Amino acid sequence: MVETIQWKDGAVVMIDQTRLPLHVEYVTCRTYQEVATAIRDMIIRGAPAIGVAAAMGVALGAMQADEGDLDGQMETICETLAKTRPTAVNLFWAIDRMKRLYQSLRGRPIAEIRERMVTEAQVVRAEDIAICRAIGDHGAELVPDHKTVLTHCNAGALATAGYGTALGVIRSAVAAGKQVDVFADETRPFLQGARLTVWELQQDGIPTTLITDNMAGHFMKTGRIGCVVVGADRIAANGDVANKVGTYSVAVLARENGVPFFVAAPISTLDLTLASGDQIPIEQRAAAEVTHVFGHRIAPEGTAVQNPAFDVTPSRYVSAIITEKGVARAPYEESLRKMVR
Amino acid sequence: MVETIQWKDGAVVMIDQTRLPLHVEYVTCRTYQEVATAIRDMIIRGAPAIGVAAAMGVALGAMQADEGDLDGQMETICETLAKTRPTAVNLFWAIDRMKRLYQSLRGRPIAEIRERMVTEAQVVRAEDIAICRAIGDHGAELVPDHKTVLTHCNAGALATAGYGTALGVIRSAVAAGKQVDVFADETRPFLQGARLTVWELQQDGIPTTLITDNMAGHFMKTGRIGCVVVGADRIAANGDVANKVGTYSVAVLARENGVPFFVAAPISTLDLTLASGDQIPIEQRAAAEVTHVFGHRIAPEGTAVQNPAFDVTPSRYVSAIITEKGVARAPYEESLRKMVR
Repeated sequence: MVETIQWKDGAVVMIDQTRLPLHVEYVTCRTYQEVATAIRDMIIRGAPAIGVAAAMGVALGAMQADEGDLDGQMETICETLAKTRPTAVNLFWAIDRMKRLYQSLRGRPIAEIRERMVTEAQVVRAEDIAICRAIGDHGAELVPDHKTVLTHCNAGALATAGYGTALGVIRSAVAAGKQVDVFADETRPFLQGARLTVWELQQDGIPTTLITDNMAGHFMKTGRIGCVVVGADRIAANGDVANKVGTYSVAVLARENGVPFFVAAPISTLDLTLASGDQIPIEQRAAAEVTHVFGHRIAPEGTAVQNPAFDVTPSRYVSAIITEKGVARAPYEESLRKMVR
Repeated sequence: MVETIQWKDGAVVMIDQTRLPLHVEYVTCRTYQEVATAIRDMIIRGAPAIGVAAAMGVALGAMQADEGDLDGQMETICETLAKTRPTAVNLFWAIDRMKRLYQSLRGRPIAEIRERMVTEAQVVRAEDIAICRAIGDHGAELVPDHKTVLTHCNAGALATAGYGTALGVIRSAVAAGKQVDVFADETRPFLQGARLTVWELQQDGIPTTLITDNMAGHFMKTGRIGCVVVGADRIAANGDVANKVGTYSVAVLARENGVPFFVAAPISTLDLTLASGDQIPIEQRAAAEVTHVFGHRIAPEGTAVQNPAFDVTPSRYVSAIITEKGVARAPYEESLRKMVR
């Protein structure tokens, strides 16, 4: 069992996802600023895991804060964490949850506030694992037996507090006795598929084949892929899905080849304040992620680069959205609103 | 001007495409066996360039051969070169051309045979450059002005004896005064886009932006891409196109977004003996190309890999095929046959 993120002895311990799979190392964050840096540098990544990290970051901030202007300090803590990454809505969801708790506790002794905030962050983590198991169990029945499941990026235990969303669906399908294997897109530029998904599924003994992103279409065309399952970083009210760049391409290729395309995500990934995916902010990351692989330059000096970390898949390509509350299908305006009630 | 491959002092000199862009080095092949190794190891790659290399390889073989059983020696030389890579038909086309010349010369003094074979190989090279310029000029008018051209892999000067096929079209569009810039897919696993296309277009001062393969769909959806131009390794009678893996995905995404998808290739890339692309052999390459980047491991030990080097794009996604004889459009069964007359 991979431990992605834990609260331990008054600190936040994360597996370092920039070092996997060659090095299994853990990073200990003792301040909310260190948590913010860990999120920004992708030591921890994956929308649900970012949410858990943010909750723990706020809790660490409460531990650091003194009794003078606690409101102002909490404001700074939350703002610092909110500025780390713009796309995954789980970050803001978790910060808001911690903020609301803090507001309900205002005026209480600081020791009590601290204790309650630390407990809440651990609840966020525990809930996330339970949510992933529920997603997995709802999704397992959608996975065709005796076929290959294609996944993009890492929506696994490493992207959550444990078990995973998309990989949770695969784990539950396997646990239910289905004979499936996995094709993992390597997911350039950060290689979450090659580094994290393959590693994580190896631990579980689930047969996994690594392909480059540009091979996915070819294998869908050959009929080998029974379904696609991916995670999500933010889902708009109409069912448009922001997820790791390349998801849109996989979705188009899936529809073109009659392959079901499933999105697995917790309710906290829904952003019903946005009518469509066009309104989702897309993070641009550093050029060096594209021009270098593990520090090794792969393109000439002076290469111009675009590096959007996410893209938006219009809901018309999405066969179903699997949440902990069940499976939503089009029209998503209705089915997603029902889920959050 | 990049010199991809030259006949020099009785040897074949190639730029080493496994070392670009960080190292500009040349490899000298003095035997046909060395040429075969260079093709197999992708020191030279790109369908038309492979054809030129094979022709020069046969010529080197003729230089090495002695007067005993010349037929048998020529057979071995041609077989060795033919076994290097299975997909690009230009390899077989060039070997056949050299074989036919040899057969027409049987019984002549060996010195004459050698001289004629060496001359022919140089003619193949010179013709290839002229063909690329003609392709470029036919294709230039298809390129929308004030837009971005997306290309996949490297179908440039480095994939030919010079000027390029897809990049020849871009060069001719720029020469004709069109304001275009280029988006280059990095093209995993071998990174021909990042390493070769960006480098080559930098030499010409054509503005080029590098993206990972999985970003192409995103940029087509945003409306930035005016057209796609790619090369080809083999084109069947019905217009199905085998090209670098990922081409099929780009073609599907182009059609989905109303972006014209052009294939630029010499007549020698047509294989009218094959009714459809299903019959084109697809080369599988070593797993290490996927699990390692420049020798650095990016996936766990024991990772299973698929590494098809090519895929087949059905002709229904191809807006036009640009050859040195002009622009072919659907129905390709007719338009391609007319081209070879």
